[in-house]
Amino acid sequence: MTHQLWGGRFATPPAEALDKLNRSLPVDHRLWQEDLRVAGAWVKALTQAGVLSSSEAEQLQGGLAKVASRLPALPLSDLPDEDIHTLVERLLYEEVGAVAGKLNTGRSRNDQVATDLRLWTMGALHAVDAEVVALGKALVAQAETGLDLILPGYTHMQRAQPVRWAYIMTAHAWPLTRDRDRLRDALRRTSEMPLGVAALAGSGIAVDRELLRKELGFERIAPNGLDTTGDRDFVAEALFALALMATHVSRLAGELVVYTSSEYGFVKLDDAWATGSSLLPQKKNPDVFELARAKAAVVLGDLVTLMGTLKGLPAGYSKDLQEDKAALFHAVDTILLVLPAVRGAIETMKPVPQRMAAALDPALFATDIADALVAQGVPFREAHGLTGKLVRAAEQAGVAIPDVNEAVARGIHEALPGILQALGTFADSVERRGTVGGSGKASVMAQSAELRTLLG
Amino acid sequence: MTHQLWGGRFATPPAEALDKLNRSLPVDHRLWQEDLRVAGAWVKALTQAGVLSSSEAEQLQGGLAKVASRLPALPLSDLPDEDIHTLVERLLYEEVGAVAGKLNTGRSRNDQVATDLRLWTMGALHAVDAEVVALGKALVAQAETGLDLILPGYTHMQRAQPVRWAYIMTAHAWPLTRDRDRLRDALRRTSEMPLGVAALAGSGIAVDRELLRKELGFERIAPNGLDTTGDRDFVAEALFALALMATHVSRLAGELVVYTSSEYGFVKLDDAWATGSSLLPQKKNPDVFELARAKAAVVLGDLVTLMGTLKGLPAGYSKDLQEDKAALFHAVDTILLVLPAVRGAIETMKPVPQRMAAALDPALFATDIADALVAQGVPFREAHGLTGKLVRAAEQAGVAIPDVNEAVARGIHEALPGILQALGTFADSVERRGTVGGSGKASVMAQSAELRTLLG
Amino acid sequence: MTHQLWGGRFATPPAEALDKLNRSLPVDHRLWQEDLRVAGAWVKALTQAGVLSSSEAEQLQGGLAKVASRLPALPLSDLPDEDIHTLVERLLYEEVGAVAGKLNTGRSRNDQVATDLRLWTMGALHAVDAEVVALGKALVAQAETGLDLILPGYTHMQRAQPVRWAYIMTAHAWPLTRDRDRLRDALRRTSEMPLGVAALAGSGIAVDRELLRKELGFERIAPNGLDTTGDRDFVAEALFALALMATHVSRLAGELVVYTSSEYGFVKLDDAWATGSSLLPQKKNPDVFELARAKAAVVLGDLVTLMGTLKGLPAGYSKDLQEDKAALFHAVDTILLVLPAVRGAIETMKPVPQRMAAALDPALFATDIADALVAQGVPFREAHGLTGKLVRAAEQAGVAIPDVNEAVARGIHEALPGILQALGTFADSVERRGTVGGSGKASVMAQSAELRTLLG
Amino acid sequence: MTHQLWGGRFATPPAEALDKLNRSLPVDHRLWQEDLRVAGAWVKALTQAGVLSSSEAEQLQGGLAKVASRLPALPLSDLPDEDIHTLVERLLYEEVGAVAGKLNTGRSRNDQVATDLRLWTMGALHAVDAEVVALGKALVAQAETGLDLILPGYTHMQRAQPVRWAYIMTAHAWPLTRDRDRLRDALRRTSEMPLGVAALAGSGIAVDRELLRKELGFERIAPNGLDTTGDRDFVAEALFALALMATHVSRLAGELVVYTSSEYGFVKLDDAWATGSSLLPQKKNPDVFELARAKAAVVLGDLVTLMGTLKGLPAGYSKDLQEDKAALFHAVDTILLVLPAVRGAIETMKPVPQRMAAALDPALFATDIADALVAQGVPFREAHGLTGKLVRAAEQAGVAIPDVNEAVARGIHEALPGILQALGTFADSVERRGTVGGSGKASVMAQSAELRTLLG
Repeated sequence: MTHQLWGGRFATPPAEALDKLNRSLPVDHRLWQEDLRVAGAWVKALTQAGVLSSSEAEQLQGGLAKVASRLPALPLSDLPDEDIHTLVERLLYEEVGAVAGKLNTGRSRNDQVATDLRLWTMGALHAVDAEVVALGKALVAQAETGLDLILPGYTHMQRAQPVRWAYIMTAHAWPLTRDRDRLRDALRRTSEMPLGVAALAGSGIAVDRELLRKELGFERIAPNGLDTTGDRDFVAEALFALALMATHVSRLAGELVVYTSSEYGFVKLDDAWATGSSLLPQKKNPDVFELARAKAAVVLGDLVTLMGTLKGLPAGYSKDLQEDKAALFHAVDTILLVLPAVRGAIETMKPVPQRMAAALDPALFATDIADALVAQGVPFREAHGLTGKLVRAAEQAGVAIPDVNEAVARGIHEALPGILQALGTFADSVERRGTVGGSGKASVMAQSAELRTLLG
Repeated sequence: MTHQLWGGRFATPPAEALDKLNRSLPVDHRLWQEDLRVAGAWVKALTQAGVLSSSEAEQLQGGLAKVASRLPALPLSDLPDEDIHTLVERLLYEEVGAVAGKLNTGRSRNDQVATDLRLWTMGALHAVDAEVVALGKALVAQAETGLDLILPGYTHMQRAQPVRWAYIMTAHAWPLTRDRDRLRDALRRTSEMPLGVAALAGSGIAVDRELLRKELGFERIAPNGLDTTGDRDFVAEALFALALMATHVSRLAGELVVYTSSEYGFVKLDDAWATGSSLLPQKKNPDVFELARAKAAVVLGDLVTLMGTLKGLPAGYSKDLQEDKAALFHAVDTILLVLPAVRGAIETMKPVPQRMAAALDPALFATDIADALVAQGVPFREAHGLTGKLVRAAEQAGVAIPDVNEAVARGIHEALPGILQALGTFADSVERRGTVGGSGKASVMAQSAELRTLLG
Repeated sequence: MTHQLWGGRFATPPAEALDKLNRSLPVDHRLWQEDLRVAGAWVKALTQAGVLSSSEAEQLQGGLAKVASRLPALPLSDLPDEDIHTLVERLLYEEVGAVAGKLNTGRSRNDQVATDLRLWTMGALHAVDAEVVALGKALVAQAETGLDLILPGYTHMQRAQPVRWAYIMTAHAWPLTRDRDRLRDALRRTSEMPLGVAALAGSGIAVDRELLRKELGFERIAPNGLDTTGDRDFVAEALFALALMATHVSRLAGELVVYTSSEYGFVKLDDAWATGSSLLPQKKNPDVFELARAKAAVVLGDLVTLMGTLKGLPAGYSKDLQEDKAALFHAVDTILLVLPAVRGAIETMKPVPQRMAAALDPALFATDIADALVAQGVPFREAHGLTGKLVRAAEQAGVAIPDVNEAVARGIHEALPGILQALGTFADSVERRGTVGGSGKASVMAQSAELRTLLG
Repeated sequence: MTHQLWGGRFATPPAEALDKLNRSLPVDHRLWQEDLRVAGAWVKALTQAGVLSSSEAEQLQGGLAKVASRLPALPLSDLPDEDIHTLVERLLYEEVGAVAGKLNTGRSRNDQVATDLRLWTMGALHAVDAEVVALGKALVAQAETGLDLILPGYTHMQRAQPVRWAYIMTAHAWPLTRDRDRLRDALRRTSEMPLGVAALAGSGIAVDRELLRKELGFERIAPNGLDTTGDRDFVAEALFALALMATHVSRLAGELVVYTSSEYGFVKLDDAWATGSSLLPQKKNPDVFELARAKAAVVLGDLVTLMGTLKGLPAGYSKDLQEDKAALFHAVDTILLVLPAVRGAIETMKPVPQRMAAALDPALFATDIADALVAQGVPFREAHGLTGKLVRAAEQAGVAIPDVNEAVARGIHEALPGILQALGTFADSVERRGTVGGSGKASVMAQSAELRTLLG
């Protein structure tokens, strides 16, 4: 029989079907580095508390170091051990013999796994943050290169007003700065140490939790053992931050799927970031963006899994909580797959100025016309209605708005012919919306600079 | 460079980050048997359509057989191929050379993968059904053994009326029969063959889809290629059926977590189906039921993933659909882990008659008392109120209801003293609710017999 | 104090904050017709069981009729009663006095509400089915009118092969036939009567449940009271059927949002089914389709709510189940808002043949070219690669595929110049994919006929 | 025809089915105060920008004030107007005539509704925070009153170690402090003003957004119009914060459902916070906690709705975003229903010391015994196994652990008889786990003090 952390009171070992359901090593082996780090700190605390002699402590630390060197070579998800904690203890026995049995004095898997997972989460969120920054910078770079490209801005997927390409690129970069903000908050709240509360009620050994905290680099000590052993808020919050981030990427991706269609044609994917069809030889597909779009639903599924798991559980540890890791690992893996791929595609894609220009339809001047009527003292609501009539007149005549017959235009409002003549270029129209946060050149350049700082 | 089903029009191979996101072999390799079966049928159809000579067909079938014998030994999730279809074609080239290039004439990965996955799903749902049956039988067996055990039935987790243990066990078996029903409907709707529509618009080769249908054992031919290549209703429906099944198991499990607590103590888990604590030597934990409870949220997460993925996609194939398999495989794996474990625990758990008996509190006679008042002509609502007063009187006096002071009882209603004397045993009370579908002996025995038939 | 169905054992009435949380009349008042119908049947059963004299029965039936005539005029969601059952009993007391107290003899709100809600659900699913049929017919009508319109079919939102407009319209009609199938199954499973099991364990009155079943029109009698009072599978299944249906509509809607964009321009919305902008006078927005797209997420949220609520509950009634109705009503209301609006927009929208034709890019002939090479004996995979090279050559030369320089084409494969000359029209290309289920004229006409039958 | 903010270019008004789907007044009328506040600020900005004369500004402000006084009396959800912005403009026309048409100069419903909703959200989160504080204080009060009550602490719903009642109460208060933290972060991120970017690209009027920001009390100005008009991160984050909060309450509630069961009996609900049964006169149900438990799923459903809605949308406004409000209002209403009800029940519930004491099973000393063996130099893992054997010996002999036959105990380990004699009381056992964050008296008193500060 394999090494087990319990069983004294049991007449028989676990049945196979139970073992398969119960064994978490195939998932939690990914915590091995954290588990060893926590074990090392615990040895120090036990030594300070007088439970271990200094020679025992040395033996254990030496053993843990050997375990650390063996672990990377082991086929972790195939081993028969119940979980990473059991595996570490078994290997430690192999290295140092009976003294290994002292390692887990006064602690429980309940506080241990919560501590391990918090450390892992903190590392993961930092890794995600680095990738968010990289994607953000790719967007800003596109914005800077394409500063003077003008194309229609859309609402309801309908052409609305002319905007800069840079304005669209930065519009997708800003949400990433909010993601970073949320990651920061999540990190802060994750940085609270469960270790030292044992199974639920505090440790029977008078360990110094402040020593442990410093050793492991947590900001705070969890104030209640029953709460902290059953608390997975940090997982929920990480999952939410990732789900919303994935949603942002899905919006960027969804928009680019449209822009790479032949009908829009605003951007061209680099060959190295596009894919083909097994049947249709001419196809060049934006799989990268479609997959990125779908992944928002994948991470949302992980969030639902965790939230659904937590609902209604009493305080303290219930085995249901074991589901936290698969969901979290899956979400982190997913986002770390998506971000670099989308970034690569963004970095290498090429805007197509002539297609952007071709889409600049004179109907995009409609607001300019209404604003010009306002400048002549017409109340806006009336100006809106008059311009609407002009649009309909143009549509019925089958001409562009600026080409509406002068008499017809004058019939709608006498100032219209003059206004139509003074419309200028689409670039002029963009600059007429010069407010802070608008699509004007100064605003977009300021945004790009601020984004560079925030993505620092 | 690895074998690829496309690329003629591309200047460069896919970038690494794209490849990682895009490559589905680590997931879809599980379809290899279905993919080969579909390939075999396709060879027949191409031969009949005159695209392959009979010797080419023989070569290809021989090659597919060799590929089939090689595949189980390959490290499928580590191979560099894009997906299972690409891998199969590559191996086929290795076996039969250039003629392998004829296999995929007139078909696309779009119709291929949809066909493969439907076949896989049908197999999986049959496997799940067998496990549902087994769990149902375990519950019926418990019901039959414990037919005469009486304990409180609960609503709102408050003692309500005495019921048979068999009544509770069958109450959890009935939902499984509905699950079987849903699996049957899901199977019927899954049994519709996409093959032969190629990428979206029908095959350029005049294949006989009816021949393919018979060959692969589908009930129907999918009537529209654009629909069927983008249709994942069968995945959604399978996921829902599994999610609701997992929810049923979570309810059974949640109830047994309570019943195995010391405070209830109605059942004892067998040692082989319980687990211990790494810190608390006395613990015997119902991990099996806690994990089963949590898995309802896990499968719900998978369902949300799929539904979220499908939302808003146009008809036809979008790469987003690639996410279908991970979610489906995960849900099926999960349920196939849960069902046998819960069954094992149910089969071996022991009811504890004395704890059940101890919980039979005389307040459980309250409805009997009200019903007896009704039999004396008191309108029910009034009888309910009078019994409520009796309950309060008993509570204030700190006695059991049947022991309320006779004068007090008579003060509430003159018939009460007589009624209290005639209450009989809890078993009598159970039999007084003798309607079809109730907890009476005849009803429970009939249920058990009907369940045996339905679980056949 | 208001009328209450309980309280005899309580010293004080419910606190206000509890009452607000607990009171379900603002939601469940919508069950009033079902509640009265069930009450009428119950009176018959009680009479047959000898609990009511025939004159009492007459009084009660008369009273229920009067209550039925008063209810529509009452401000149902503002009344102070706890729920619809309480309200009905109160009104009945007002009409017939003390005999009203006999109505609920031997039954409980647990079996009552489950019965009411099943009846309501059956009605609602029938209403939804009628709207699904209407939407399906609108799609078929578009298909029939636009039978000969040819446009690109898309995969990955990239032009893939020419298809008929009718093929796209029918592609969106087929999922609705599956929805109908699912509704039918859901209806069958919903048609199981809880009434007669009382709170959990069977009724203390020997009512004839078969009489009740016939009276209320259910197909079956629920076989276990503990199960049926806590069973909300029928709600879950209805919600899933609606969520998947909403997803289908979201796909249709999402595709039409794209087709109504200026860049595609394949369809024009009727003015009565489009909306405008408060600021941009020229805008004509497809709000109807955007809202329909979003509603898939709304109904999915309702499904998650219900599934999450059910998870882990014991058999029998828990108050958690009260959440079923708000979720179900919300989902049904949502779908009944979406279906007619989308149908109206579909019925009145106009395809724009010239925009469809303009999108027919010669690259859509690529598969034809590969198929033609196959016909010359070139293995398909090789033909695919050669056509890919031709595509790249065309792209580099900036010409359409059929216009690639003859020498260049011949350099790729000697048969290519001949093949390019024989390509014919896009309509020819469509007909070349003449398999059953394809986009060819015969296939599409057959589909339309079969759809008419299925939507009959 | 009703007043409409658009329509000039349309030949016909919206069809009825579209109007029903599209009209948001039944939902967004709740924003009326925010809409008027934003309108007031906008008038100032337009005046400063020279678009309005000071007399026009006065007229408009006066008109807005009159509208504000009329609105509360209107049947808001029954009015025919499209949305709250349309209604306000219509009423303003009624009050001040044509000058009303100048109000919406240079702004759009896109920036307007985003601004309104942010203001509303900020108010709502403050209201929720006040209720969270109140619930937290109720828990602390219970902790303080019940400081010396000792009962089993549970893991896996199995008795684990003795703990203070105060420890359990504070364990449920700590999550609320994290909720407050998350509300604070959500508030900070919500406090970013969209107003002034118009429909997407910036306003055609040179309004001073800094003036608007100060006027409306936002912390920051949204830096990109396309982003901010389509950004609903603040709604997602609020929904997540509420969903996790509701999950916390569901855990507290779920635990109390168990504790109020007859089998546990640790707490008694006050009559004013309990409910009864329509059939079972003796029942006293914890509906308040069951409903609170279910509401976690309700709010999770709202979160899924919003996240699913956002997925894949392009930057900028799409009509899909209209679904944000119903989900947010529903979640806020839900939580504001749950928190006061649960608080009331907590404030008035009574712990039952004798039931707590009765549950203190000597097996709870197991860890003390293992720890005592450790103190004698036995490695913990071995001590754990020895204690496990002792547990089994006790179980087999049918005696409590401390009563195991001395010889049997000594046979397991010679120090055991002495250890068993020295176990002391359960209170002693609690104090032996005296680490910070444990269940010891000092720790619990410190927690209560710190919670009082955090809930200040």
